[in-house]
Amino acid sequence: MFEFTVTHVLPGGSARTGRFMTPHGAVETPVFMPVGTKGTVKAMTPDEVESLGAEIILANTFHLLLRPGDEVVRDLGGLHRFMNWHRPILTDSGGFQVYSLASLRKVTEEGVRFRSPLDGTEIFLTPERSIAVQENLGADIIMCFDECPALPADPARIRRSAEMTARWAERCLQAKRREDQALFGIVQGGVYPEEREWSAAATTQLGFPGYAIGGLSVGESKADMETALEVMDRCLPRDRPRYLMGVGTPGDFFRGVERGVDMFDCVLPTRNARNGRLYTNEGALNIRNASHATDPRPVSETCDCYTCRHFSRAYVRHLMMSNEILGSRLATGHNLRYFLSLMAQIREAIRSGTLADLKARVLSAHPEDTGELTNHKINEIDD
Amino acid sequence: MFEFTVTHVLPGGSARTGRFMTPHGAVETPVFMPVGTKGTVKAMTPDEVESLGAEIILANTFHLLLRPGDEVVRDLGGLHRFMNWHRPILTDSGGFQVYSLASLRKVTEEGVRFRSPLDGTEIFLTPERSIAVQENLGADIIMCFDECPALPADPARIRRSAEMTARWAERCLQAKRREDQALFGIVQGGVYPEEREWSAAATTQLGFPGYAIGGLSVGESKADMETALEVMDRCLPRDRPRYLMGVGTPGDFFRGVERGVDMFDCVLPTRNARNGRLYTNEGALNIRNASHATDPRPVSETCDCYTCRHFSRAYVRHLMMSNEILGSRLATGHNLRYFLSLMAQIREAIRSGTLADLKARVLSAHPEDTGELTNHKINEIDD
Repeated sequence: MFEFTVTHVLPGGSARTGRFMTPHGAVETPVFMPVGTKGTVKAMTPDEVESLGAEIILANTFHLLLRPGDEVVRDLGGLHRFMNWHRPILTDSGGFQVYSLASLRKVTEEGVRFRSPLDGTEIFLTPERSIAVQENLGADIIMCFDECPALPADPARIRRSAEMTARWAERCLQAKRREDQALFGIVQGGVYPEEREWSAAATTQLGFPGYAIGGLSVGESKADMETALEVMDRCLPRDRPRYLMGVGTPGDFFRGVERGVDMFDCVLPTRNARNGRLYTNEGALNIRNASHATDPRPVSETCDCYTCRHFSRAYVRHLMMSNEILGSRLATGHNLRYFLSLMAQIREAIRSGTLADLKARVLSAHPEDTGELTNHKINEIDD
Repeated sequence: MFEFTVTHVLPGGSARTGRFMTPHGAVETPVFMPVGTKGTVKAMTPDEVESLGAEIILANTFHLLLRPGDEVVRDLGGLHRFMNWHRPILTDSGGFQVYSLASLRKVTEEGVRFRSPLDGTEIFLTPERSIAVQENLGADIIMCFDECPALPADPARIRRSAEMTARWAERCLQAKRREDQALFGIVQGGVYPEEREWSAAATTQLGFPGYAIGGLSVGESKADMETALEVMDRCLPRDRPRYLMGVGTPGDFFRGVERGVDMFDCVLPTRNARNGRLYTNEGALNIRNASHATDPRPVSETCDCYTCRHFSRAYVRHLMMSNEILGSRLATGHNLRYFLSLMAQIREAIRSGTLADLKARVLSAHPEDTGELTNHKINEIDD
């Protein structure tokens, strides 16, 4: 179980394809994981998510702990059965959400005490508790509970945080009971190469079946992100999957894949869809713009999704302007198809040695995808 | 075109099955028409609506006139193509919405002047304009523009309104150009048998391929509704379909069908679904109740819908409590299936002579369905 096989490496580079085995089937990498924060990929049924091409989805420990509660999910047969998704699931540990969503947060060596943003209840989340919750949820891949320092932070603060994250990772390993879940370590270190190196050494020394790269895409420049990814590429073992947490845009996929990243997740396609921002091979568009009001063409002529096969831009715009649920559905399905199809194209391009061509094509269609990073992580309670 | 064939009459009664031919196919009656106010049955794709068993849906002239505009829909190939629904459509005339939704309404013999609830624009809707809008939308069945008096109203006020509605009906007939649309007349008359008789005579004398019963389910008692329906049953020609507008509950279906009604529409299943109220063969339930929080059973053990085949009450409740779009989807699909399946059972019960048994079973499961009528018409701008 949890065997990771690198199936192809792009000559002269770090980009690779692979296959990660889980109790709920294989995942072909590089992979994009749609985000189902609260046990649903927003607006979609699990059947639709699967037919859009998703092989694995992400759910969130913090949100599910608050509601409906991890023990409820456990008693109903675990998250797969609860949400009727029978392929692999990854749960985030809640560390990032404790940092971004909780109020009156108090961090000690033991863990983090905070108040529920839903009802103010005091909650104490520790490495042990995070693992227990994730064991109750029952995902295939679970994450270590990490400490996310408030940014900006100087190297000394980043180091103290990475040290605690490393001690917590050891406690997570100790706490883990289930054999049918793979626990991934998380490397921190901010934008400082030395801190990244330190955190990678401390984490890999513990020995995990996979490694996540945390603390990126939180406001740093693309150049800083690329530097950090290069350090990670050098420091992380090549025989384990690498997961770049909460990233990213189409351009970020290339930035990551070129540096050996295998897994990505991001709320971007689903959240943006609900705001009317749609991704296509021809570029991004805001379907709410008046220019689409009478346009009989599909969102994209080159897209094979349900939305583009059946509806005009004018109709999708009408639904969005009218706040109709079907608008969110059609937009979300389209964006997920774009992201999942792009990742399939990236896998194929790695195999055929055409990754640079694909990258040039995608970036030229998305000139906006070059500036500062914005935060597309699970950072809203209604996320 | 628009041939109506009565295929079976319940011995000793008025309940009947029939078939109404339209340019987009046949409709088996009695029929329930899901409401797609703004060109979408809320939360559902047209494929889903069809697979739930719908043969015809309703859309609203008032809402579509305001947004996206009837000329936009016309230029995009008409409503069928716009929303990708290729079975029959009925459009309401907007008369009821002008009365229930518009502000600064001024009614004259010529028509109704009012302000758009969307942006305050002044709009002048006349019988001729309503027909022109409905011809642009291109439904199979269109409705006369009627005057809906503010309630309560005395018989004299009801008569004046019915007289105007009759004069407007004549103007609608005169204005109508398209041969591929059936224009139905609307009978008013409130709860007064004599006024109902007068309005029926005035309307049927003009000769329509179908007749709608307006002005019911607007706050009157069930007894008053039944009396009015009995007058309608006596006064309307038996060789034309009869459409009870904006009605109703499962109990109302029996009250109508027993008095020869063939067509119904109501926002009840879709609107209630979004509020968590679900209909089942075993009774109605509010899925938001805490009692469902850990319930592994489906919403209904006897339902064949997608929701009941795949998800627990606990999961549906979790989605509703979390305001997840999928919650509205699963609830809406379930309720529509209940309403459409109930109407299919009613047709079968008329054929097999078991309508009374079916009625007793449904009403005993829904003891709440006996009190005062509440208004489940399209009476919200966000409807």
